[in-house]
Amino acid sequence: MELSVLFLGTAGSVPTPSRGLSATMVQRGGDRFLVDCGEGTQRQLIRIGIGINDISHVLLTHLHADHYLGLPGMMKTWQLWGRTDPVTVYGPRGFLDFLDVMKRLVGKTEYPVSYHEMAPGGLIPFDDFQIEGIATQHKINSIGYRLSEHERPGRFNPERARELGVTPGPDFGRLQHGQSVWVGDREVRPSEVMGESRTGRTIVVTGDTRPCRTVAEAARRADLLVHDCTFTMDEHERARHTMHSTAAEAAEIGREADVKLLALTHLSFRHHARDMVAEAKPIFDRIVVPSDFDRLVIPYSEKGAAYMQRSDVYA
Amino acid sequence: MELSVLFLGTAGSVPTPSRGLSATMVQRGGDRFLVDCGEGTQRQLIRIGIGINDISHVLLTHLHADHYLGLPGMMKTWQLWGRTDPVTVYGPRGFLDFLDVMKRLVGKTEYPVSYHEMAPGGLIPFDDFQIEGIATQHKINSIGYRLSEHERPGRFNPERARELGVTPGPDFGRLQHGQSVWVGDREVRPSEVMGESRTGRTIVVTGDTRPCRTVAEAARRADLLVHDCTFTMDEHERARHTMHSTAAEAAEIGREADVKLLALTHLSFRHHARDMVAEAKPIFDRIVVPSDFDRLVIPYSEKGAAYMQRSDVYA
Repeated sequence: MELSVLFLGTAGSVPTPSRGLSATMVQRGGDRFLVDCGEGTQRQLIRIGIGINDISHVLLTHLHADHYLGLPGMMKTWQLWGRTDPVTVYGPRGFLDFLDVMKRLVGKTEYPVSYHEMAPGGLIPFDDFQIEGIATQHKINSIGYRLSEHERPGRFNPERARELGVTPGPDFGRLQHGQSVWVGDREVRPSEVMGESRTGRTIVVTGDTRPCRTVAEAARRADLLVHDCTFTMDEHERARHTMHSTAAEAAEIGREADVKLLALTHLSFRHHARDMVAEAKPIFDRIVVPSDFDRLVIPYSEKGAAYMQRSDVYA
Repeated sequence: MELSVLFLGTAGSVPTPSRGLSATMVQRGGDRFLVDCGEGTQRQLIRIGIGINDISHVLLTHLHADHYLGLPGMMKTWQLWGRTDPVTVYGPRGFLDFLDVMKRLVGKTEYPVSYHEMAPGGLIPFDDFQIEGIATQHKINSIGYRLSEHERPGRFNPERARELGVTPGPDFGRLQHGQSVWVGDREVRPSEVMGESRTGRTIVVTGDTRPCRTVAEAARRADLLVHDCTFTMDEHERARHTMHSTAAEAAEIGREADVKLLALTHLSFRHHARDMVAEAKPIFDRIVVPSDFDRLVIPYSEKGAAYMQRSDVYA
């Protein structure tokens, strides 16, 4: 099952020539989750040639304009393009108080829309993964999101099954689905023929936040942590005041959580990616600073490390 | 005085890889008027390197999302960038009923903002030009805008003044400012030394509209008419139903008004510029179909025809 994160907007607060406003798409197989939807997100998707109608969930981290003002226009475009599939929109505490504005901007839609608030620890369950709300710290109500896959069963060992006398066929399937089978009067249990269960993958996306323990805990050993990195240390006071993180602070969280990869985003227009790397790398070296349209592909851990796919779309 | 029109978003209803949502900037000297402000307009300005803080007036043609959803984000950016200059926003009848939504999206600003409704015939006066509301026909309340310069005084003829005995110096200035001077007991009147007054330039921008007589009248002999051109004739019924114009209909208006140049915009993603040209040209051949970032420069009529400056920004 392919799992990837597509960076659609990596600018902080105001867009730049090369960076759009906040939007990060998590794709898992055919499921597409859009974390934040800054102004211009629909066009970023159209430019990279991704069907915007396939987004099923929009997960807003907070209600600052640069994180949600692209949503009403995208919802209008869904309507114009004849979407019928439902869409589910999550936002932080207080989000539902904002619905009268959203509804006046969007108007009527032929497709069903449901709006929900997400609190820390709140869960959106799916068949083999879940999305959980993570406490973050910003100037207004905010929430991060953690997508985690359930454990996968271990690998089936057909040689061992044959040695135990099991006949290839339906009994092999039963064992792989957790049922015992009988060979004469001997019970063969799944644990005898299945390897150890394998961990699923985990991605955490913070949205705008001060560095905080709840994120470090939620991202413990995560495959990917996408973290606010608005400023460098020389603007530390500004980061505190505006409740963002510096590159050094984000790197400290990445180190504390021992994540497999830390992606820094939401860069102030005053800073270049290379400044962020220079500041973060001495603290934690498994970092990337994605550009718009970069995609991070996250393989299962036994299949190798995350890697970056760059797009040929001019950012 | 330089007068030009910069096309910032030429797509109809939904953006495309190369066309952003509706926004057209009229620049006259240091004055910048933004007609419509679709989602993504601030980034278009930032991409082309134009200081967005210099916009003094935003003129909304109607309140469909693709024409105004870029305004709240731009107003937030003005706030973040420390704007102190006032901004004046005009919209169609009913616009003021929408202000509670605008204000919740924008929040407090340090710079003054004033909101006004514009009706057909309404005037915004400036020193040497004016902006007037033009009746248009769309599905909801709508208004077009016509910028017209006042007549300029004719050219001063210094040789003729000398022949009449006027001494170069302050008296030359008096004559050029409309005052008579005396040479002995003979009155020399400005009309004796000044050429005929010269017409000013006129630009009309329709926003979304069916073809209509009021536009043809307002655009009579205009230097530039920027007209809705969402569809080609094969979608004529759709144009009628959605109250837009086809390329042929826009060309008919251009011909009826005998404009010096007709610029077609608001193209549906289903149509290419070349289709619009092919349909319009046999009806009226002084047309252009601008791309995003194209600028039309409008010289005074005695100085030549309008010309296109293409940008090196990748649309």
